[in-house]
Amino acid sequence: MTSPEPLVLVNGSPAALLSPLDRGLAFGDGVFRTLRLESGEPVWWLDHYAKLAADCRQLQLDCPTRTEWEQDIAWVAARQPDSVVKLIVTRGPGPRGYRVPEALLPTRVTTASPLPGFPDPVATTGAVVRICDLRLGHQPRLAGAKHLNRLENVLARMEWDDPEIDEGILLDSDDQVISGVMANLFIHRDGVWQTPSLARCGVAGVTRGRLMPILAAQEGRFGLADLMQADAILLTNSLIRVRWVARLGERNWPCPADFDNLQEKLCSGV
Amino acid sequence: MTSPEPLVLVNGSPAALLSPLDRGLAFGDGVFRTLRLESGEPVWWLDHYAKLAADCRQLQLDCPTRTEWEQDIAWVAARQPDSVVKLIVTRGPGPRGYRVPEALLPTRVTTASPLPGFPDPVATTGAVVRICDLRLGHQPRLAGAKHLNRLENVLARMEWDDPEIDEGILLDSDDQVISGVMANLFIHRDGVWQTPSLARCGVAGVTRGRLMPILAAQEGRFGLADLMQADAILLTNSLIRVRWVARLGERNWPCPADFDNLQEKLCSGV
Repeated sequence: MTSPEPLVLVNGSPAALLSPLDRGLAFGDGVFRTLRLESGEPVWWLDHYAKLAADCRQLQLDCPTRTEWEQDIAWVAARQPDSVVKLIVTRGPGPRGYRVPEALLPTRVTTASPLPGFPDPVATTGAVVRICDLRLGHQPRLAGAKHLNRLENVLARMEWDDPEIDEGILLDSDDQVISGVMANLFIHRDGVWQTPSLARCGVAGVTRGRLMPILAAQEGRFGLADLMQADAILLTNSLIRVRWVARLGERNWPCPADFDNLQEKLCSGV
Repeated sequence: MTSPEPLVLVNGSPAALLSPLDRGLAFGDGVFRTLRLESGEPVWWLDHYAKLAADCRQLQLDCPTRTEWEQDIAWVAARQPDSVVKLIVTRGPGPRGYRVPEALLPTRVTTASPLPGFPDPVATTGAVVRICDLRLGHQPRLAGAKHLNRLENVLARMEWDDPEIDEGILLDSDDQVISGVMANLFIHRDGVWQTPSLARCGVAGVTRGRLMPILAAQEGRFGLADLMQADAILLTNSLIRVRWVARLGERNWPCPADFDNLQEKLCSGV
């Protein structure tokens, strides 16, 4: 690991390790969140907690309480007030086999890494993106949730190592645009903002949820041709918040006219 | 956990724990094997090692050497010579993010649980099965591999808790029969054995690979109606080896005429 060792809590204990029998390892049986801690405050915390709890319900998983997470975050905040905080909850350690036995105790993992380039320099430049070869499969039962089965993202991210490329665009097996590997996506076309429907695959991020009403964006289905014909493309996640796409192959886009305004609207929320 | 604590080795160290930064936890970025250890001997070991190495290649993951695994297995064999051994390899601990950095060290986890009901009583009775509601999604890049992204299996296994039901049959999003939740599947119809093609989803197990030549079975595509019209259905995995299906809903099947013979042929291999 090149960066300094992250701060780690496992079930609230500093520097604790994980059971090799944890179902998070065995099956990816859990969900996670990544969020910004700024001056000790978790940004959009209530949204993140609500999404974590919703994703747990989708997997019929017990979510640790808000208080437990807030104690973890306070511990991190006291040590590294500007951080990328990652929260993981798994179904906990269990015996071999897929069956979920009674009375498993969920595992709660909180880690914190330095906030990349804080204060963030990327927010003022556009992103250079590529189209990934990997096509996302459809699984409506898992779609939308940020669960721990992320091999599609890992394989897609392996497709490039050019540091000039900021993000890869993921299409699904029907060649519909879904998202970036790390970010959600919006396009502006014919005067309307759209973001892909995530009913069959993809992760419905907190920033996407916050930006949709600001842009009056609709969920829709669109392909690569629509993406290339868009007047503007935006990428969102909790770390970059919102970034405009400047280049995809030969196609270039200027910074959208109202970008500063919408960035301010997005970032002014608690 | 109701059963005794399994034996555990992490990178060859007894009772070691796992880094919460392991990519096996973060993304399910790894593969695994489950096999029988009988009188200290790992059954079909060369097949299992070959499959583990092939699955690692599919994820561009470094597989620990055969010698490393054999040292782990010898340690288990000395303590619990009749066991279910599970081998996990992950891409190892790494910094936050999907990107695979240079020089990660894979994590090797070996666990051993008691062999269920040894000597196995289930081999002489037929299995009672049900059809799962969950439909497997298609992802050709991951299909066939026994990777750690197994939430589909976990959700499918949650669909029943009736202990009379031994296995759930999984169909894919095109309503083609793929496998059981825990086992591969063969059907006999019109004098021919068939097993589902696993080009788009499912796990191509070692026992399936061994049984195919014994049955002269072909890979094919078939749906639920074909399954119900089969003369015989077999389930295979490395723990049960081969078991015949006795009941699915209202439909009952007798033990296939040549079952003892094929079981003997299957089990006589090293």
